[in-house]
Amino acid sequence: MKDTAATVMERCDLLSNITEDAEGICRPYGSQSMREVNNIVSGWMRAAEMSVRQDSIGNLVGRYGGNGEKTLVLGSHLDTVRNAGKYDGILGVLLAVACVEELHAKNRKLPFAVEVVGFADEEGLRFGTTYLGSSVYAGDFDPARLALADRNETTLLRAVRDFGGDPEALVGGGRSGEDLIGYCEVHIEQGPVLEAMDLPVGVVTGIQGQSRIQAGFTGVAGHAGTVPMNGRRDALCAAAEFVLEVERAARAEPPAVATVGEIRALPGASNVIPAETRLAVDLRHPDDVSRVRLRDGLRRRAEDIAKERSCDNSWQVRQETAAIPMDERMTAKLAQAVERAGYPAHRLPSGAGHDAAQLAALTAPAMLFVRCKDGISHNPAESVTKGDVGVALDVLGHFVELLAENEENGS
Amino acid sequence: MKDTAATVMERCDLLSNITEDAEGICRPYGSQSMREVNNIVSGWMRAAEMSVRQDSIGNLVGRYGGNGEKTLVLGSHLDTVRNAGKYDGILGVLLAVACVEELHAKNRKLPFAVEVVGFADEEGLRFGTTYLGSSVYAGDFDPARLALADRNETTLLRAVRDFGGDPEALVGGGRSGEDLIGYCEVHIEQGPVLEAMDLPVGVVTGIQGQSRIQAGFTGVAGHAGTVPMNGRRDALCAAAEFVLEVERAARAEPPAVATVGEIRALPGASNVIPAETRLAVDLRHPDDVSRVRLRDGLRRRAEDIAKERSCDNSWQVRQETAAIPMDERMTAKLAQAVERAGYPAHRLPSGAGHDAAQLAALTAPAMLFVRCKDGISHNPAESVTKGDVGVALDVLGHFVELLAENEENGS
Repeated sequence: MKDTAATVMERCDLLSNITEDAEGICRPYGSQSMREVNNIVSGWMRAAEMSVRQDSIGNLVGRYGGNGEKTLVLGSHLDTVRNAGKYDGILGVLLAVACVEELHAKNRKLPFAVEVVGFADEEGLRFGTTYLGSSVYAGDFDPARLALADRNETTLLRAVRDFGGDPEALVGGGRSGEDLIGYCEVHIEQGPVLEAMDLPVGVVTGIQGQSRIQAGFTGVAGHAGTVPMNGRRDALCAAAEFVLEVERAARAEPPAVATVGEIRALPGASNVIPAETRLAVDLRHPDDVSRVRLRDGLRRRAEDIAKERSCDNSWQVRQETAAIPMDERMTAKLAQAVERAGYPAHRLPSGAGHDAAQLAALTAPAMLFVRCKDGISHNPAESVTKGDVGVALDVLGHFVELLAENEENGS
Repeated sequence: MKDTAATVMERCDLLSNITEDAEGICRPYGSQSMREVNNIVSGWMRAAEMSVRQDSIGNLVGRYGGNGEKTLVLGSHLDTVRNAGKYDGILGVLLAVACVEELHAKNRKLPFAVEVVGFADEEGLRFGTTYLGSSVYAGDFDPARLALADRNETTLLRAVRDFGGDPEALVGGGRSGEDLIGYCEVHIEQGPVLEAMDLPVGVVTGIQGQSRIQAGFTGVAGHAGTVPMNGRRDALCAAAEFVLEVERAARAEPPAVATVGEIRALPGASNVIPAETRLAVDLRHPDDVSRVRLRDGLRRRAEDIAKERSCDNSWQVRQETAAIPMDERMTAKLAQAVERAGYPAHRLPSGAGHDAAQLAALTAPAMLFVRCKDGISHNPAESVTKGDVGVALDVLGHFVELLAENEENGS
């Protein structure tokens, strides 16, 4: 029997050579390497008897006809960040193609069509924005984005046209959701949970909501040698208390995660008491109500810390996105498929954003995570095993058959 | 009666106009403005019947003869940092000159000579080093420094020659200490203690010893959204604990002061868990044994924090200087002088370094601090009141008379 998982691994290797940078994988939207990758993946799609088109922004859409009117969408993205790994996005597309190949090899027609999409831009490397591809597909594209320019001053409008797309058709050119059963995306976890639990795959409950906050403390600068401890208004000590408070608050409410990833102390000289600190706080939770409560609690704690230390504080919510729950029915089927493949269906939230978040505007989304080594992603060290890829392929096969049973039973 | 304190204030104002920079005071070693300042101060010295010389590095030395063989040295420095205030260093020199002027006006000859020194370089702005002037005067000059270059690649050797000095004579050209009674320096406090206590002046117990440490924590980077709280090895959380530990340790052992003035978190992205932090710790204490105990205690705490968080830590002592205690006998006389002037003699350590630290290698040092507004120094906002300057002048007058009584009694 043909080892399809091995084929998927080989294809990931092959596509990793198609890059804009001599060293490291880098495949931004609209690049020559994106064009080549779309061509190559088209070939695999056609070989599996799929009809292939590129939509108005360049998403690659392969369609494997079925016996009914309905359509299931599978996919992920084909673009990458700079110095990327081989699997983020790509693995999901190639597993979807492989799933169809296996159906085709068995001459199996499902009671619905399967549409495999390789989204043209999820990472947003070139234009500093995310979900460009899936927003067009989902009919949710914001035309204001057409004016965005890359670092060579090429606008998105121009880039879409250069890539063979149609900028006029981006708005309203989305797919109709009427015939859709749902969307399922396979993606590497980009976290350490499955590895720690010794599980090859996990079922995603939803994509976490997120608050990005710029917090600041202002005290009084002073000579590190001459200002006694009890007269100080040290902005870094205030910030240090707050960093630990952020950690404590998130630990107290799992599965919340909260991170201070950036800190600056000013003036920043070894013999001067810091007068000012600025911190970037990243707070995420699958439940928006919990996230907002945590966020407001942290704001109060920042104010209290500042007050106790006779410092001032600032608080700016820079960006917030709501949680996107996965569809319960689709997710239940996916969990059932994991169990049929012989594994417990561990459920976990997704900390990172995915095309599935955008597809939720169009249809019922579900996601399967594949274990990745040390939780590393966006890095050449990104790694998955052929065994886990085999399990994911198996799960996808059971998933489409479970949906088929469902359609056939008319339920 | 002539208001000598007003004269001192006017002279500080006058010298503040003699600067290398169009905006702000800046008077580095060997500059044209130093030359002018030495000339002007020489004039005031001569008017008070002092003989004036410039030594081999350009320290300005005015000598007011006495009736005995011995000599008391008074002084401070005439150079400044960039964007300096009007009083740091300068006030001490001009108060010493004014003290002699008052003796001269009364036709008072002491049983010892008074030598007033305006040191040519204490701040080390031009060559990135400190105590250049006083190290020569004290016979403690390190000739390796002659090769130091300023930012125009002019060496110290060349700068000394250009300033009319004699680089060959810097070593061994120091003053003999045999005839010396001691050294007394008046300086602005550069801290907030006297202001908080509502006192015009204070008696310095010693110049604190100092440890400068580069501390580091290394954890593991990770995606801020995908790594659960309990699996994290966050180098910034470790650093935050340590920052608070530094504060706690110093607070527990007054008059210790400890400061983290610089912090860096790497990679430093809002959505990435910090993998590495680096901190600059500045620890000072008037007692070296206490400082070393505090330093070693902090090192152990850094190790413990790292261990508890499964992080690694690094610890590098970058620079250490021992405490310089002031001379007990001279300091007792100075305290007595403060009381004669009608104020309680509050004793406090000096957090910053001063020429007195270098003079300790030559003779018995003492220092008087003058209150400065908000503890601010090295800044145009540096400010002292005429009233406080008057008190300092009064104290200096009582001090020399107390030493005179002492000499006359042969004790």
